[in-house]
Amino acid sequence: MSKIKMSPEDQLREIKRGSFQILPEEELLKKLKKSFEKQKPLKIKFGADPSRPDIHLGHTVVLQKLRLLQDLGHEIYFLIGDYTAQIGDPTGKNKTRPILTEEDVKNNAITYREQVGKVLDMSKTHVVFNKDWLGKFSGLDLIQLMSKTTVGAILQRDDFSKRYNGEQAIYLHEFVYPVLQGYDSVHLKADLELGGTDQTFNLMMGRELQSSYEQEAQCILTMPLIEGTDGVHKMSKSMDNYISLTEAPSDMFGKLMSISDELMKKYWVLLSRRPAAEVDKILSDLNSGARHPMVTKKDLAQEITGYYHGEATGLEEREKFEARFSKKQVLDDVETVERPAGTLALLDLMRELKFIESNGEGRRLLKQNAVKIDNKAHAAETYVLLKDQEVIMKVGKLRVIKLKGV
Amino acid sequence: MSKIKMSPEDQLREIKRGSFQILPEEELLKKLKKSFEKQKPLKIKFGADPSRPDIHLGHTVVLQKLRLLQDLGHEIYFLIGDYTAQIGDPTGKNKTRPILTEEDVKNNAITYREQVGKVLDMSKTHVVFNKDWLGKFSGLDLIQLMSKTTVGAILQRDDFSKRYNGEQAIYLHEFVYPVLQGYDSVHLKADLELGGTDQTFNLMMGRELQSSYEQEAQCILTMPLIEGTDGVHKMSKSMDNYISLTEAPSDMFGKLMSISDELMKKYWVLLSRRPAAEVDKILSDLNSGARHPMVTKKDLAQEITGYYHGEATGLEEREKFEARFSKKQVLDDVETVERPAGTLALLDLMRELKFIESNGEGRRLLKQNAVKIDNKAHAAETYVLLKDQEVIMKVGKLRVIKLKGV
Repeated sequence: MSKIKMSPEDQLREIKRGSFQILPEEELLKKLKKSFEKQKPLKIKFGADPSRPDIHLGHTVVLQKLRLLQDLGHEIYFLIGDYTAQIGDPTGKNKTRPILTEEDVKNNAITYREQVGKVLDMSKTHVVFNKDWLGKFSGLDLIQLMSKTTVGAILQRDDFSKRYNGEQAIYLHEFVYPVLQGYDSVHLKADLELGGTDQTFNLMMGRELQSSYEQEAQCILTMPLIEGTDGVHKMSKSMDNYISLTEAPSDMFGKLMSISDELMKKYWVLLSRRPAAEVDKILSDLNSGARHPMVTKKDLAQEITGYYHGEATGLEEREKFEARFSKKQVLDDVETVERPAGTLALLDLMRELKFIESNGEGRRLLKQNAVKIDNKAHAAETYVLLKDQEVIMKVGKLRVIKLKGV
Repeated sequence: MSKIKMSPEDQLREIKRGSFQILPEEELLKKLKKSFEKQKPLKIKFGADPSRPDIHLGHTVVLQKLRLLQDLGHEIYFLIGDYTAQIGDPTGKNKTRPILTEEDVKNNAITYREQVGKVLDMSKTHVVFNKDWLGKFSGLDLIQLMSKTTVGAILQRDDFSKRYNGEQAIYLHEFVYPVLQGYDSVHLKADLELGGTDQTFNLMMGRELQSSYEQEAQCILTMPLIEGTDGVHKMSKSMDNYISLTEAPSDMFGKLMSISDELMKKYWVLLSRRPAAEVDKILSDLNSGARHPMVTKKDLAQEITGYYHGEATGLEEREKFEARFSKKQVLDDVETVERPAGTLALLDLMRELKFIESNGEGRRLLKQNAVKIDNKAHAAETYVLLKDQEVIMKVGKLRVIKLKGV
């Protein structure tokens, strides 16, 4: 039974789409070729911080790539870093990094599984916990591991070098974390590790350590961070510009519709599951004007909402949005007619506004549900308008006003 | 039963003699006062590298200070660092740092005990092995420990900063060693740690860690390194300018006699067990000319040889040395008289040299053992001189020549 069907070159094209960096690309192609020939899936590693189980669309950039790799036939190792989670922040400087109990980690893992399961096929995903192997490390084992790298190498990590040069404290144990993360790759014998661009250094550490342990070194694939709904800052909870996977369908759809046309293009590339060729076509049609930006954005919002709430819900949200949007457009344009609060004689009102020529025509329209107040058919000849209340009154398809009680 | 008899101020004076640095001195005086009041000995820590059990006089600078502290009534913890000895040099760069097996460590510990026992009273010395507590460390424990200090702090250590700035590799595990050494102080609840000046940083780490663990911080006392017999380089095996404790008595005495007058003063301060006041007197008498340097050097050599081989042997070596030295002095000054190799008529020779006026006088001198050849009485009237042989011939107390066969 052939598990890996796509040619190595085509696989690479799909993997590459939207990625920030593949290091080294030739090596990855070689691995893909070997895997294809032997029909042996690659081991793909992705490490998750167990303290933040509430994931948002920003996190799915990587998850969608994992999903792609899974669809291509490769094996995903979803690693929950529970070993160092036991440490918390021993310096007490970082209040946001609490010590996680085993209970916490377990609960978070369940939440992760649920949320990640919205992107990955969990029945084919290996969820692993690094405490299973790192937890067996003695102090000596750790010292031996540390001897495989140098202080200079670790200080090259961007945030470390900035802090060191800025004379900000780097606590000694922080140097151990990248090494442990690297050792996870050794333990898993990973072929490819994915992460955000901010993880490049840590992913490379895995490569180095595998070489030290005389393994074939993993390749690394970094995915860019995406801007949040504001289009300016990276999507994050602290910036409140994020779209959570557990967001209600209408909120998810609405937030997606609120992004800029430019950002929409990025979201197509990074968040859509459609094949690279299709996405390329959408983008080129957008650029040539063959596609309308608003429609394309609705397609995106429908598709992404569909991933997390089902296709039917995606479509439904689109329709609801379109209805709301139409009303909104109406509301912005129409004339406001003020009337004293109280019981309003609709036939008189419609005649005054020249919507009808006779009370008979008015009564007929009311009977035919052709008079709508706030989008709901209104059959009675009177309407009770409250003070400061605003409603939209539509008569037939063409006549519309905003009624306001004064 | 009063164990600590000397006043804290006097103790400090003795401790201070020859020391490089006491940090902080006021704190040590406070500890000495408290210890004196409560008659509770201070815990004195000294760490030894278990890979180098063949100790020389250079090492005794610190050991003599420990001996002093022991004589003052304090408790010595002689720590053998066997925990990290199990690691060796994992980088393989340092061939001189082999991995020590448990067997090696045990054997070295025995040798240490023997050698250190020549300075310290081992019945009152606690010999401890840090594997006993560090060996229980898990990886997590080590990470927690590392979080107590910063990269910046460790990089301040001289040799690290030099290597870092010189872009020489510092392997990550090397950063752990000072922290472990510091933790030993926490475990032992040390009041004072001794070491060479090159250990200042590591000793201070103990102080810091004790504070982190909310203990009263230890004071540190560093002793200078001494120059070896060449008077130029620090005493070390690699420079071959060292005096081993296992050196034969005559070699030890002889090597001590070979040092310069300047260096002798340092040796008096750092290697003699005499009270500070006596040593001060010796040095001031030397400076004023009231003491002769050669005699004072013999006193030193006799004393130190006596420490390691017994007082009687020290004296014996002095006498042997003086005999050899006398001959040497004679040899340098006297006139050389050449005679053809073969049997020499001594009466004729003595007359020619105007040592005697008649053969009768010569025969009487021979009979009275007043004629000495190479310091041995010679009674015969002839002497067989070989070609190129040189002997000293003394007649009575005042007449002497060097005889050479040609």
